[in-house]
Amino acid sequence: MDQDSINQVIDGGLLPRRALLKASALGLATSFVLPARATENWMLHAGEPQSDYGQPSPFARLKREQTGGHPLGPAAGSSSTPLQDLNGTITPNSLHFERHHSGIPAIDPRRHTLTLYGDVRQPLQFRYEDLLAYPMETHQYFLECSGNSFRNTLATPLDLTAGSLNGLISNAEWTGIPLHYLLDEAGVADSARWVIAEGADAAGMTRSVPMSLALDKVMIALYQNGEPLRPAQGYPMRLFVPGCEGNISVKWLRSLKIQAQPAYTREETSKYTELLPNGKAEMFSLAMGVKSLITSPSGRMTLNRKGLYEVTGLAWSGAGTIRGVEVSADGGISWEPAVLQSDPRPLALTRFRLPWRWVGQSSILQSRATDEQGQVQPSRATALARYSPAGFYHYNGIQSWHVSSAGVVKNVYV
Amino acid sequence: MDQDSINQVIDGGLLPRRALLKASALGLATSFVLPARATENWMLHAGEPQSDYGQPSPFARLKREQTGGHPLGPAAGSSSTPLQDLNGTITPNSLHFERHHSGIPAIDPRRHTLTLYGDVRQPLQFRYEDLLAYPMETHQYFLECSGNSFRNTLATPLDLTAGSLNGLISNAEWTGIPLHYLLDEAGVADSARWVIAEGADAAGMTRSVPMSLALDKVMIALYQNGEPLRPAQGYPMRLFVPGCEGNISVKWLRSLKIQAQPAYTREETSKYTELLPNGKAEMFSLAMGVKSLITSPSGRMTLNRKGLYEVTGLAWSGAGTIRGVEVSADGGISWEPAVLQSDPRPLALTRFRLPWRWVGQSSILQSRATDEQGQVQPSRATALARYSPAGFYHYNGIQSWHVSSAGVVKNVYV
Repeated sequence: MDQDSINQVIDGGLLPRRALLKASALGLATSFVLPARATENWMLHAGEPQSDYGQPSPFARLKREQTGGHPLGPAAGSSSTPLQDLNGTITPNSLHFERHHSGIPAIDPRRHTLTLYGDVRQPLQFRYEDLLAYPMETHQYFLECSGNSFRNTLATPLDLTAGSLNGLISNAEWTGIPLHYLLDEAGVADSARWVIAEGADAAGMTRSVPMSLALDKVMIALYQNGEPLRPAQGYPMRLFVPGCEGNISVKWLRSLKIQAQPAYTREETSKYTELLPNGKAEMFSLAMGVKSLITSPSGRMTLNRKGLYEVTGLAWSGAGTIRGVEVSADGGISWEPAVLQSDPRPLALTRFRLPWRWVGQSSILQSRATDEQGQVQPSRATALARYSPAGFYHYNGIQSWHVSSAGVVKNVYV
Repeated sequence: MDQDSINQVIDGGLLPRRALLKASALGLATSFVLPARATENWMLHAGEPQSDYGQPSPFARLKREQTGGHPLGPAAGSSSTPLQDLNGTITPNSLHFERHHSGIPAIDPRRHTLTLYGDVRQPLQFRYEDLLAYPMETHQYFLECSGNSFRNTLATPLDLTAGSLNGLISNAEWTGIPLHYLLDEAGVADSARWVIAEGADAAGMTRSVPMSLALDKVMIALYQNGEPLRPAQGYPMRLFVPGCEGNISVKWLRSLKIQAQPAYTREETSKYTELLPNGKAEMFSLAMGVKSLITSPSGRMTLNRKGLYEVTGLAWSGAGTIRGVEVSADGGISWEPAVLQSDPRPLALTRFRLPWRWVGQSSILQSRATDEQGQVQPSRATALARYSPAGFYHYNGIQSWHVSSAGVVKNVYV
């Protein structure tokens, strides 16, 4: 691609996805300097030796956001993944979002059991060690809190980062035992339609899982990104319900009760139901919608040079695999298909990217995902109209970032 | 599968891969106990709140092994991934193996540059920040040290864990810039055949990469499992050469020199060459062979009950994708095809599993991988015969674990 074709700026600066970036196009590489030997301080002496359990560079300044919690009850709160600092699709375990209703229990796996009972032929109880002997599966899946992005349902757009606004979404390789193995062994009664999962935290978090889901992709997850679950993610074991609101993937799982009816717990009546405009409520609306956002450039960043940028972000859908993502640089007037940077996998995050030329024009950057079922991510207005104005769960409207002529990037509503 | 078919123990206890494990077959689930409420201490009070950067459970006792290093030069050493404690395929960043020749430099990315020079039309220099604007790709790849498993080339088998013996192998999702973008921009001379990569550590680690590889899958890696590279893995940037001996994926990358000949550095003459039985040496033999090992049951474990177990392990090949893995429980007399627990991806770890019934029989567990090119993992004897007895690089012989009638698992040579 030569300079001329780059100057043919289309659609607010977006370049077609076949356009390759080159250094001359970027204008970033400086004039040649012979690589000096041993001028950097760190080349003059041996560095730190290997370690038992590694840590990131302090220069990378990695940390979860919104970790404050409620001032009177810090154990009931959440933390979000700093999406703007990451690339690829995996969320490292230390940065996976958290949502705790009564803090993180410090469970000794030798003193923890999982009980499977209720409408079954043979109730069962398993120690952690027993479960390690079962056949496992390994899949990459996203996990999204039902309340993710709720700040964008507020009347005024908050000037926050991508992670603070939308970071209750993470992605990991989960390894665990397909639940149908355990259900099959216990012998589920014909009348049974629900699995009631209870956690061993002080909140006794309890959710009802429809049997159709329980027999499909649900697993008892024991490993996350290769290592045993972190305590913040349910150590020693959690339920994992792929594609569904995070709350139903009950952490610190201690029992599964099989019955004909749902339990109608607090977490599926008062909370985690969606009030509709007509005053009725959607209950057990579990699958997360099709969604995406641009993670860079994103809120609170500043573009400190003119030229080409890589617009990059994440897309996902609770209905399956992402089929495509489009990007707009003019607030949704025109759209350009993005490149999928990683292989799209069902119920996992997919990364997209597209080159964009910024020469100081005021722009509104947006992304819009489409999934394998043809569902298209809605505008903010359409997403809000689905629910009562009091609602804030399952919000999947398009995220808009305004780039000012000074290069300041800010959350806006379009 | 009923009890009768389980009792039809074949091949030293291995069950065919279509056999599903069930609780009754495992005999692990205990008689029914009503799940008591709030008896565990951790259900009686709120737990710890969310945090900036999470940590694993102390009960999981996760740490890298063999971290001691040389007593007089601890900065020149290695640490290995505790394979026996992990499941799935991803290695979490904190447990990725390390091999440093002069320790880990503490690089400030604002003071680090990458220079591309030599036989090029236009030498280039890049800051870290510049590189973030380039198009990136995301792939899951293994990284294996050329000297991995060298302890099994010694005359006497060492009674060590799977990780201590074979843990200089890890697997991560790497995100970075395809090197061909930068080479293309610099304009490589027709005569150029090699890319000489130098690291910014005090060892000035330098390796020669054939141009054919450099133009293929090689990347400038900037992210590992989603987050910026760890210092131990080359922060802020490393070369990544998929499928090849780890040493050539130069960490803390500071320069790439393009030239007609290799550099013949210490690391590709004195070290990282393989002496053959005829006295000649293989140089630039980069691709790692087809290999696998059982990670559980494995060395220094003890089976503390009789019954069904899940035999599980990892397989990989520098030539591409794993096509299949076979497992033997009788020291290689008979083999049974394993289930591939994760989707096989090119140049990445694949997890396999197979049920195994242990009723106290003395057994020798082995695994044998085959890759897409039809290469089959060799026996220890065949693997050793390829090189001079002085050699210890690129060893990919079959790992044998002896299970005694008391259930003690130990590294043996067969």
